[in-house]
Amino acid sequence: MTLRLGVIGTGAIGTDHARRINHVLTGGRVVALTDVNRESAEACVASVAEGARICDSAEEVIAASDAVLVCSWGQAHEAQVLAAIAAGKPVFCEKPLATEAEGARRIVEAEVAFGRRLVQVGFMRRYDRGYVALKRMVAERLGTPLMVHAAHRNPTVPERYVTPMAIHDTLIHEIDVLRWLLDDDYVSAQVIFPRATSHTHGALKDPQIVLLETAKGVRIDVEVFVNCRYGYDIQCEVVGEEGTGRLPEPMAIPTRLNATLGQSILMDWKDRFIDAYDVELQDFLTAAARGTASGPSSWDGYVAAITSDVCVQAQEAPGSILPISLPARPALYD
Amino acid sequence: MTLRLGVIGTGAIGTDHARRINHVLTGGRVVALTDVNRESAEACVASVAEGARICDSAEEVIAASDAVLVCSWGQAHEAQVLAAIAAGKPVFCEKPLATEAEGARRIVEAEVAFGRRLVQVGFMRRYDRGYVALKRMVAERLGTPLMVHAAHRNPTVPERYVTPMAIHDTLIHEIDVLRWLLDDDYVSAQVIFPRATSHTHGALKDPQIVLLETAKGVRIDVEVFVNCRYGYDIQCEVVGEEGTGRLPEPMAIPTRLNATLGQSILMDWKDRFIDAYDVELQDFLTAAARGTASGPSSWDGYVAAITSDVCVQAQEAPGSILPISLPARPALYD
Amino acid sequence: MTLRLGVIGTGAIGTDHARRINHVLTGGRVVALTDVNRESAEACVASVAEGARICDSAEEVIAASDAVLVCSWGQAHEAQVLAAIAAGKPVFCEKPLATEAEGARRIVEAEVAFGRRLVQVGFMRRYDRGYVALKRMVAERLGTPLMVHAAHRNPTVPERYVTPMAIHDTLIHEIDVLRWLLDDDYVSAQVIFPRATSHTHGALKDPQIVLLETAKGVRIDVEVFVNCRYGYDIQCEVVGEEGTGRLPEPMAIPTRLNATLGQSILMDWKDRFIDAYDVELQDFLTAAARGTASGPSSWDGYVAAITSDVCVQAQEAPGSILPISLPARPALYD
Amino acid sequence: MTLRLGVIGTGAIGTDHARRINHVLTGGRVVALTDVNRESAEACVASVAEGARICDSAEEVIAASDAVLVCSWGQAHEAQVLAAIAAGKPVFCEKPLATEAEGARRIVEAEVAFGRRLVQVGFMRRYDRGYVALKRMVAERLGTPLMVHAAHRNPTVPERYVTPMAIHDTLIHEIDVLRWLLDDDYVSAQVIFPRATSHTHGALKDPQIVLLETAKGVRIDVEVFVNCRYGYDIQCEVVGEEGTGRLPEPMAIPTRLNATLGQSILMDWKDRFIDAYDVELQDFLTAAARGTASGPSSWDGYVAAITSDVCVQAQEAPGSILPISLPARPALYD
Repeated sequence: MTLRLGVIGTGAIGTDHARRINHVLTGGRVVALTDVNRESAEACVASVAEGARICDSAEEVIAASDAVLVCSWGQAHEAQVLAAIAAGKPVFCEKPLATEAEGARRIVEAEVAFGRRLVQVGFMRRYDRGYVALKRMVAERLGTPLMVHAAHRNPTVPERYVTPMAIHDTLIHEIDVLRWLLDDDYVSAQVIFPRATSHTHGALKDPQIVLLETAKGVRIDVEVFVNCRYGYDIQCEVVGEEGTGRLPEPMAIPTRLNATLGQSILMDWKDRFIDAYDVELQDFLTAAARGTASGPSSWDGYVAAITSDVCVQAQEAPGSILPISLPARPALYD
Repeated sequence: MTLRLGVIGTGAIGTDHARRINHVLTGGRVVALTDVNRESAEACVASVAEGARICDSAEEVIAASDAVLVCSWGQAHEAQVLAAIAAGKPVFCEKPLATEAEGARRIVEAEVAFGRRLVQVGFMRRYDRGYVALKRMVAERLGTPLMVHAAHRNPTVPERYVTPMAIHDTLIHEIDVLRWLLDDDYVSAQVIFPRATSHTHGALKDPQIVLLETAKGVRIDVEVFVNCRYGYDIQCEVVGEEGTGRLPEPMAIPTRLNATLGQSILMDWKDRFIDAYDVELQDFLTAAARGTASGPSSWDGYVAAITSDVCVQAQEAPGSILPISLPARPALYD
Repeated sequence: MTLRLGVIGTGAIGTDHARRINHVLTGGRVVALTDVNRESAEACVASVAEGARICDSAEEVIAASDAVLVCSWGQAHEAQVLAAIAAGKPVFCEKPLATEAEGARRIVEAEVAFGRRLVQVGFMRRYDRGYVALKRMVAERLGTPLMVHAAHRNPTVPERYVTPMAIHDTLIHEIDVLRWLLDDDYVSAQVIFPRATSHTHGALKDPQIVLLETAKGVRIDVEVFVNCRYGYDIQCEVVGEEGTGRLPEPMAIPTRLNATLGQSILMDWKDRFIDAYDVELQDFLTAAARGTASGPSSWDGYVAAITSDVCVQAQEAPGSILPISLPARPALYD
Repeated sequence: MTLRLGVIGTGAIGTDHARRINHVLTGGRVVALTDVNRESAEACVASVAEGARICDSAEEVIAASDAVLVCSWGQAHEAQVLAAIAAGKPVFCEKPLATEAEGARRIVEAEVAFGRRLVQVGFMRRYDRGYVALKRMVAERLGTPLMVHAAHRNPTVPERYVTPMAIHDTLIHEIDVLRWLLDDDYVSAQVIFPRATSHTHGALKDPQIVLLETAKGVRIDVEVFVNCRYGYDIQCEVVGEEGTGRLPEPMAIPTRLNATLGQSILMDWKDRFIDAYDVELQDFLTAAARGTASGPSSWDGYVAAITSDVCVQAQEAPGSILPISLPARPALYD
């Protein structure tokens, strides 16, 4: 009755997911795991995955499990997900689904050929209760959505974070969650670069504003500002025909201290959607127990990849409006 | 057509009122003034009251003016207000109307004998737009008021501020404005002393909680905390049968800075009701032009004095509930 | 490795806890249950506790389990908890621990005699993340606490809810959580009755204000208003020497609709602390796996019972300040 | 010493300004006025401008006054302002300064030729205390400004309001106030059209998003949505290198009513900046008493006209980024 889980890649996120499965969530147990670094695998077993077998390959993990989590580095995702599909096993894959849109397409095709959903992509924001409540508010009270004003702000990023990463690593979350929020797809993208903050470095244009247009005509502006200094801050306002709704601020204690009425803003991105990881993975366990997957699909991962690629092109031609073309959506994902 | 104003007492508040009349408000001009300190009077003329005559006495100011402002020290208020009434001239009196309730009673009697309202007491909160909006909200939306939760907090007070001043100098504003807000009178008072802050001194019990009961049964709790450190902060929440309403926070810019979503709290009490002084004095000018007074009356000043006296007694018998008895209200104040 | 749980009483809350154990939390499984109404027990098995054995008595459930949940009606709690202690099994008991303070005392004595904590009382607010964050804020930023202003408001209550229930069923939560928040005990209580809302009935004085004093001198005022109409609303503001902190509002989407900038207030109390139930029960499972209990203890339940009794007496003598005396705390609860 | 004011055009705004001068502000008195509709002029005299002379022409008003207010219809502004400049008299001109940028240029040239500032344009937002506080916050705390996110929303507009009016009548306020807020000038504009609300009509594309770029590289996005239904709502968020600041919400009573924690949003634009009109006109009176003008200048009016014209062109080429070129600023306006 308890689902046997395999974990491929036991770095920070893999170990954290193993902890969730064994110590927080219900219905699953980690029975096998692997990592390119065997010490990492051993540490994972020692700390949170008692009794799990350390395997020599992803294939061995897949063979030993009812369902698998792909938490390896991005380059390896495609092959590992395809192997799980080939084995007919539900697979949760951290983003990116593949490092290129073509890889994501191959996964979609394999899943379609298999004939049943097996893949869930790790877009956790769809499981955040703020976004869930906002989506319900859009559906019930705001009227037809017309615009979205969003911001994705980090206090700081390391030197190796360069301009395209503002899309691939940062905007990627808005790309997925706003599609889902609006139940819509993108048709064009434009990037504009405001005056750069003096807190950035030579290889990173920061901030950026990405303008997206959807098939239904909704216009989205997303400020991406990864050296904003003051906090990790995710803003989202939907403007509908009847009114507006915003993503709530994370829970914080309102204080009156030192001449300020205020509340703390998170500084660490890991705290922002921490609850959503639990919900996301429980959703995977629940669906996997039925031999399938729900939530963000490989199609969603593919669309996000296509959209990201156009956004990166748009970074290279600031001000230009570039079209986004999607292939027809297979019926499996309706 | 321009009302000739006299100013008795040209300290900080007297000079500020003179400035308002000559440089902000409409309909009046300072023509005469006096102060026990002649240099102060000269400075007032030089800075804001150009052309005003410096008089040797309050009587001389009253004789030279259509209406007067009493801004002298508290001990002198009663005699000066009575002199203005005797001359049939509208008089604006800063609080306290008199240093004892009996003095306020004598002013009420003189005004009643004169047969027309001439006195406005300087309870400026009734002119604050937040309180005005809250009063309208109580009347229109909240249903019958049942409770009021209030707080009067100062960042710090000087050494000479002792326990009874928490009533006479601080709570006095809540005593007046809550009566007006509720259109009600007090029937009992109780004072309780929480653990004292370590930031107070030996002659001041701080904070205090004053519990007032009204004739209609409304229960009011007012926290008076004059060494609260963080700011000058006036809170007022009315709980009615249908819902609650609060005094708005003073206007401030919401910021996101240094890991905090916040806005400034005022530190200086003088900034909190600064707009209300203009409205209050314009109201005096407008009524005085018609030979009368409106706004907080000498009756209101008398009732505030009686209530304050009971509250000070209640400080001396912590926990005891003391009755507050008022004489019948003369018809002039209906 | 999986803890075998027994559930005594499978009404709404018992069944909900069984669901949590089997379908949400980790580490436990319901293996036995009982209810005075056998159909209720069967429904529980059918809906959420698959495979659990239906027993004929609480004793049989205790014998069949590693730990038990007492979710029966209040009159039965004492005997069932004592039976669990006698069997040396961890027991989670919904409030009240006993219907009278004396019953709670007997449980404390039995547990002390046993020599290890076995009992957790169902005061779930201690597990609410808002209260947890507020407690941390008190400890870290607000300075020594001096006052607490609190409110417990329900939109409406049924006819059978009478005046003392405002203490036993409603204030009881503040009684426990504020002791915990302040790490303090009560020494006196006073109740005052504001003007009654016209929405109450003859046997219920509503609203009420309960004033509590702690051993450290903190003064607490709690408004209990159970026909407030507008929503289920729990307010808590702590005033410390350096500043204030408030319980956060429950997460809600800020909207701009119909001339109002607003967010929803919950109407149903069951939604307010819904997450806390999960955390509370997981805490029980975790401690029970080690053969003990943590969280709110039988001592806490006993103190809450003593305090409640004094508050009810204080209702009968409005305005009087009644002392609250506690026996010495056994070392087991330090 | 009292400034003699002339009012040209006694419609709603002209009469309201006359009321301010005679009954609210200090230092001026309306002595002459005119209107194409003599009955309007008579009504103005009767209601608020007692004793003022009704003139037959703007020239006659100018001759009879120390300073004038031009509140006539837009087509007449240029000639009347030029006449005031020719007479060397300070002139307050409601927007638009002229119906075309060329007209505004002629006014600038006349004023420069005269050699002293005489013209104040009626951009009242610069006098709103919210914007004033935001400007100070930008200067003191937010660091170098990088982006501005703004919205200008009206609940509804009449049928005669067509697409270009979203610029000329609505965005014009943001065009002026954001230049002032940032102390910067515009270099390009782009307009994009989201999905249209079903509440608009055939000749009005609504909403619109206008993207402006400044000389310093600040990127501004302004949502203009004039059938937003829910209220009259002006939003402005400045994102600087160190953090963000927002325009405060207008004062409103926070209530808890009917399952909602909320506060009212204004529905009528006339209420939004009502206090700013007083401050603006007092500023004019004060400067005019010294024979000059301060505040928004004819140069500001000219720049706003040039910018508006480009924005209207940008409406006609959605998505295109159009340059905005300004002539060199005369030293008079430094």
